[in-house]
Amino acid sequence: MSEHRTTVGIDLGGTQLRVACVDAAGAVLALERERSDQHGSPQGLIDQMIRLIERVRSPGTNAIGCGIPGLIDRRKGVVLGIPAFAGWSGVPLGSILQARTGLPVQLENDANVAAIGEWRSGAGRGSVDVAYVTISTGIGAGIISDGRLVRGHGGLAGEIGHTHISDEASTCSCGNTGCFEAVAAGRALDRRVMSAVVGQPSSLLAGLVGDRTPGAEYLGIAASRGCPVALEILDTEAYWLGLGFTNLQHLYAPERIVMGGGVSALLPLMRERIDAIMRQRLLPGFTPAVIEVAALGDSAGVVGAAFLAREKP
Amino acid sequence: MSEHRTTVGIDLGGTQLRVACVDAAGAVLALERERSDQHGSPQGLIDQMIRLIERVRSPGTNAIGCGIPGLIDRRKGVVLGIPAFAGWSGVPLGSILQARTGLPVQLENDANVAAIGEWRSGAGRGSVDVAYVTISTGIGAGIISDGRLVRGHGGLAGEIGHTHISDEASTCSCGNTGCFEAVAAGRALDRRVMSAVVGQPSSLLAGLVGDRTPGAEYLGIAASRGCPVALEILDTEAYWLGLGFTNLQHLYAPERIVMGGGVSALLPLMRERIDAIMRQRLLPGFTPAVIEVAALGDSAGVVGAAFLAREKP
Repeated sequence: MSEHRTTVGIDLGGTQLRVACVDAAGAVLALERERSDQHGSPQGLIDQMIRLIERVRSPGTNAIGCGIPGLIDRRKGVVLGIPAFAGWSGVPLGSILQARTGLPVQLENDANVAAIGEWRSGAGRGSVDVAYVTISTGIGAGIISDGRLVRGHGGLAGEIGHTHISDEASTCSCGNTGCFEAVAAGRALDRRVMSAVVGQPSSLLAGLVGDRTPGAEYLGIAASRGCPVALEILDTEAYWLGLGFTNLQHLYAPERIVMGGGVSALLPLMRERIDAIMRQRLLPGFTPAVIEVAALGDSAGVVGAAFLAREKP
Repeated sequence: MSEHRTTVGIDLGGTQLRVACVDAAGAVLALERERSDQHGSPQGLIDQMIRLIERVRSPGTNAIGCGIPGLIDRRKGVVLGIPAFAGWSGVPLGSILQARTGLPVQLENDANVAAIGEWRSGAGRGSVDVAYVTISTGIGAGIISDGRLVRGHGGLAGEIGHTHISDEASTCSCGNTGCFEAVAAGRALDRRVMSAVVGQPSSLLAGLVGDRTPGAEYLGIAASRGCPVALEILDTEAYWLGLGFTNLQHLYAPERIVMGGGVSALLPLMRERIDAIMRQRLLPGFTPAVIEVAALGDSAGVVGAAFLAREKP
């Protein structure tokens, strides 16, 4: 594909729809975002996509890539289901978009397009073995191995959030216990903060949180001011991230781990402890992967979807 | 590569060296095995390899693949270290074998060549997404995703045995605790059998084991005769295998899991329970992978090494 050609990336999120026109170097030439039309039928969301595509596309645009927050049949271009929206089972989104835009369309799941974005244009750039892990309410991942996405059967690979990592009884969003997500993601962190707020009401952390919903920002502020309650919570979080990242490395041997999502803001406060755990646990031959905070923020998906469009189908 | 050409596979094991001449369909045309020259220098083992290669190769042989029980630099064809043998750090095995045989040589680690063997010619045949897991004293794995080995940086991917899966305190061969290998491999199984022999001396299992070293065979016999002590140990083993295989599926999304190693002989007695755990824990969209016992036995490595030789370097 010629260097001056552009592609359109679509990132369908549960709350926001992003559509961008991106050049071969990953530069975003035009970006549109709107609140996803949640109450609309697939027809409503598809009309919204078409409208934004027509706004961003350039004369040289020759392909579309689309990240979907759900299950897809990539080869057929069919959506199998999107947990956040009703009515998507069996929608042939690829051929619909192709018919209405005249451009070839590729679908991929949302964690995978974000991984492609960070790999091709963000914090993973320059390496062929990159694990992208997003840690917010839940945990998602996309794995690049030897310059290719690890997709697996049905494109379902990379669900590291739901690997069993602990015998702890805390329940995961998936209904099981012991998942990496159940002990290390935002919900676990919030639960630990709430329990500290109740149990240690005179702590700096409790004072900062007050009656608000706990968030990573209070934990970061309290910890950087030396609050021992906050530091202990970060220590626990770093323990689980250290175990989870060691698992990632033993499994996929990434050269770089790119960490996205809200919890990644706390990485500077946890890096030393995470690194120590990895050094302690990694087998001989491994050196701890470089852990980088994701560079593209909310644009990783839309940029990655545009790069996806450049791949051979 | 033409169909009538053959390749030579080498499988260097800690106790045995196997060398075979294999055709494009995976048929073994000649096989030699000898006790690995453990006390010899690398020079001794290399001489042994050359001798066996010359015995098995045919006029149409045009490449060599070699599985190594240690760390390698695949691109340079250099061995970085073999735990079972001294003196291998930095040995340029690829170019040495190439100079002495006149054939191009590719190196790969032993679990990966066994995975290739089972995938191309054994129980994984016909699928492009195959996880090969060998469960004996330890746990090794090789992963085929979309028809390619998942190698990762330094070729180190697939160390599922040393992923943290439990908070149990039992120590692993790697020195850590909580590894899949520490709770599910042969050593854990033997420890549970010994503890039952001591704690339940009147059980059928204890009677069968007597003063012998515990092995999978006694467990299998006792369980199939209904011994509740043996059944409980198998139930525990199936629990950990069910968790580990669920992890495998969430991570790599194989269509098929091929199980090798001594513990695989017990699969028929555990299959129902493993499958139930997988069904309970797998995310929506996943169906439990078909679990097959490895078909090539001790020849998986040597056949896989011969197939490796057919790959582009």
